[in-house]
Amino acid sequence: MDVKQYMTTVGQSARQASRAMAAAKTGTKNNALIATADAIERARGKLLAANQQDMEGGRSNGLDAALLDRLELTEARIDDMVEGLHQVAALADPVGEITDLKYRPSGIQVGNMRVPLGVIGIIYESRPNVTVEAASLCIKAGNATILRGGSEAIHSNQAIAACIIEGLAAAGLPKNAVQVVETTDRAAVGELITMPDFVDVVVPRGGKGLIERISRDATVAVIKHLDGICHVYIDDHADLEKAFNVAINSKTQRYGTCNTMETLLVAERIAADILPRLAAAYRQAGVELRVCERIKAIISDGKLATEEDWKTEYLAPILSIKMVDGLEQAMDHINHYSSQHTDTIVTENYTNGRRFLREVDSSSVMINASTRFADGFEYGLGAEIGISTDKIHARGPVGLEGLTSQKYIVLGDGEIRE
Amino acid sequence: MDVKQYMTTVGQSARQASRAMAAAKTGTKNNALIATADAIERARGKLLAANQQDMEGGRSNGLDAALLDRLELTEARIDDMVEGLHQVAALADPVGEITDLKYRPSGIQVGNMRVPLGVIGIIYESRPNVTVEAASLCIKAGNATILRGGSEAIHSNQAIAACIIEGLAAAGLPKNAVQVVETTDRAAVGELITMPDFVDVVVPRGGKGLIERISRDATVAVIKHLDGICHVYIDDHADLEKAFNVAINSKTQRYGTCNTMETLLVAERIAADILPRLAAAYRQAGVELRVCERIKAIISDGKLATEEDWKTEYLAPILSIKMVDGLEQAMDHINHYSSQHTDTIVTENYTNGRRFLREVDSSSVMINASTRFADGFEYGLGAEIGISTDKIHARGPVGLEGLTSQKYIVLGDGEIRE
Repeated sequence: MDVKQYMTTVGQSARQASRAMAAAKTGTKNNALIATADAIERARGKLLAANQQDMEGGRSNGLDAALLDRLELTEARIDDMVEGLHQVAALADPVGEITDLKYRPSGIQVGNMRVPLGVIGIIYESRPNVTVEAASLCIKAGNATILRGGSEAIHSNQAIAACIIEGLAAAGLPKNAVQVVETTDRAAVGELITMPDFVDVVVPRGGKGLIERISRDATVAVIKHLDGICHVYIDDHADLEKAFNVAINSKTQRYGTCNTMETLLVAERIAADILPRLAAAYRQAGVELRVCERIKAIISDGKLATEEDWKTEYLAPILSIKMVDGLEQAMDHINHYSSQHTDTIVTENYTNGRRFLREVDSSSVMINASTRFADGFEYGLGAEIGISTDKIHARGPVGLEGLTSQKYIVLGDGEIRE
Repeated sequence: MDVKQYMTTVGQSARQASRAMAAAKTGTKNNALIATADAIERARGKLLAANQQDMEGGRSNGLDAALLDRLELTEARIDDMVEGLHQVAALADPVGEITDLKYRPSGIQVGNMRVPLGVIGIIYESRPNVTVEAASLCIKAGNATILRGGSEAIHSNQAIAACIIEGLAAAGLPKNAVQVVETTDRAAVGELITMPDFVDVVVPRGGKGLIERISRDATVAVIKHLDGICHVYIDDHADLEKAFNVAINSKTQRYGTCNTMETLLVAERIAADILPRLAAAYRQAGVELRVCERIKAIISDGKLATEEDWKTEYLAPILSIKMVDGLEQAMDHINHYSSQHTDTIVTENYTNGRRFLREVDSSSVMINASTRFADGFEYGLGAEIGISTDKIHARGPVGLEGLTSQKYIVLGDGEIRE
C-alpha cells in the first residue's frame, strides 16, 4: 500500500464529508450517535472477538500488564461506550449558535456564529474506547474525523469503526465522516499531521513523547496536552481544615492522572501548624515525600528534593514539598516550574486569592478546591476530548466547543461602505 | 552580531516582561499609551528626520513609488499615530474579564477568565505606523511584543520604539514589554518564529509570499491572513437595487484591499435583469470583466474567464463573473474557490439567506451587505491587528480579544473530589 496516496484519499474524502457534517441538523447527528450505540449493542460478540485477537497479539508481542489492561474491551467497557454515545447525543449542539449580534452605526448587524472546525485528526494509543469517544464528540460538533489508533488495537478499532459507519448510514450521513486509518504503518501519522489542505487540527492523545513528536513535525494546528505538574499553595491565611483536605485529595485521590498535585508549597508562617498532620497523613497513604531544607527542619523524615524534583510529573505516590515566604514566592515558583495545567491556592484572604487567580498563568487556576476537579465532566462540559496546555484556541479541558470555532456574520439591508 | 544569541536575549526579556504586563492595571496600560502619544508629539522632528534617512535609503535602493509611499511618514500620518494611541487607550480592557461563572453539583464554581497570550511577535513590511498600531494593541491586551519591521524602515521604527519605551517607562512598565528588533539580518525572522519557549504567537503582516514562508517554517502558532478571494452571490430572489449597490460597492469602493470582491456570481433567473446595468456601471468605473460563457451571451463585451481567474485575487480593477443555476451551485463555487475570507449573498429569501449563512465556510459571511465591511473598525472591535483566514483561535478581523485567550477559574470552599 502506498501510504501517502492512501492518506491523501482519506483526507480528501474527509474534507468532502465535512461539508455535509457542517450542514447536518442536530437531530440527524443525534440519530447517528444513537444508531451507533444500537449497532455496538448488536455487535458485542464481534467486538469482544476482535479485541481477543488484539489481546492475543499484544500478549505474544510482550505488552506489559498496564498496556494490556488499557487495550482490553470488557462487557462493562462496552456498556460505557454505549452510555457515552447516549450522553453525547443529549448534549446541546454548539453548531450554529449566534452570539453578540449588534447593530453598528453603518446599519449592518454584526455577530458571531459557532461553526465546526472541519476535519479533525485524532492520534491515540491503545485504548479502543477512545475511538467511540472521539468520534462521537466530532460528529456532534459537526466535524469529519480521521482516527489513528494504536497498531495493537487495530482489530478492535476496525470493529468499532464498522458500528460507527452503520450509525452514520442509518442517519443518512456520509460514511467518510468518520474514518479509522486501516494501515498500521507509522508513516500514516506523518502524513496525517502534514496535510493542511485536508486536516484542520490534530489532537494527539497519549504519552509526552508522542505529543512532543507530533507538535514538532505537524504543519497543521495541534491541540496538545503536555505534562501536568500541578501545585497546591497553602497560603499563610489558609483555613487549616480546607488546606488539609485539598492537599490530601489533590495528591492521593488518584496518582496517575494529569491533574494530580506533584508539588505542595507551604507559606512559612503556617508550615509548623499544618505540616506534621499532613506529613502523617501522606505517610499513612504511602506517599514518599521529597522536601526542601526548611521543610525538613519541621518533618524530619522527608528526603531532600533536588532541582529535578520541582520539574517532575511523578504520576506516582511521590510528592515534593517546598516552603515559601508567601504568595509572591509561591507564584514565582509556580510560573517557573508549573506545566500551566492546574494550580490551586488555599486561602481565606481576598486579595491573595484574587491576585493568584489573575497572575498564575495556567489553564486552570483554583481557590480552595482540589486540583483533581480539572476535568471536562467536573466543569460541566459533558465530555472532553482532552486537556489543552496550549494558550491558543483552547486552554484546559476541551469539550464540544473546543472542536468548533466562530465566524463573523453580517446581516444587512443593502448597506454599502462609504 | 550573533543573531541567534541576540534573538534569544530579546525573547527571554520579552517573556520576563510579559509577566508584569499580564498583571498590569488597566489605568497603568492606558497611561503608557497616552505617554507614548505625548512622546511622539514631542519627537515629531526626530521621527521625520529618521524617516527621511529611510526614504533616502529607499530611493537609492530603487524602491518603487508604492513602497516609498507606504514607507513615508508625514505630519498627517504622525497625527494618525497619536490619535490611534488615544483610541486604543479608550477601548475596554479585555484582560481579567470573568464569564460564565456557574455552580457545579460538587459545590465548586467554574468560569472563564480572559488572559493575555503572553509574548506576540509581529512581522511586517515597510509601513512604520504598524509599529505603533501593533505595539498599542499588544500593550492594551497585556502582552509583551517583539516587532520586526522591514529593513527599509529601520530608522523610523527605532525612532518610534524610543517613544514607546519612554511611554512604558513613564507608566512604570518594563521597557522590554515592546522590543523592536535592532538587526536587519533576515535570520532574525527565522529565530523569532522558532522560539516557542519565548514567543506564544506570531502575526505576519504583509504579502502572501511572506505569510506562506512564515506559516511553513514557524514552530510557534501563527495568526495568518492569506489572500482575500471574496464573492458576492446575487440570488434569484435578490432585490435588484440592493444587488446593484452591494455588487458595485464590493468591487469599486477600493481595489487593493483584501475584502474587495473578486468574483461575482449571478443566479440564472435574474441575470438578464441585472447584468446589463451592472456591466455598464463597471465599464464606467474602468473595471475589466472576465466572464463565463453564459454571462458572455448577455453582456457581449466581456473577456472569457479561464480557470485561473476563479482562483485569483486581482487587487485591481478586474472582476470575474459567473452565472450559476442557483444557491446550491453558488455555495459549491464559493466553498471551492473562496479563500474563506468574506462572502456575501444578496437575497430577500429567508431560507436561502439562512442556508448561506450557515453553509458558507468563510471567516465573514454576509447577507445584503458589501464585502468591504469586513474590517475591525466596521465590526466595532475598535482596532485590528489583522484579519485571520485561519479556523483555529481567531477567524476574521482580530482585535484586542484575539490577542487574549481564556483560562478556567475555579472558586471553591475546600471542596474535594470524591
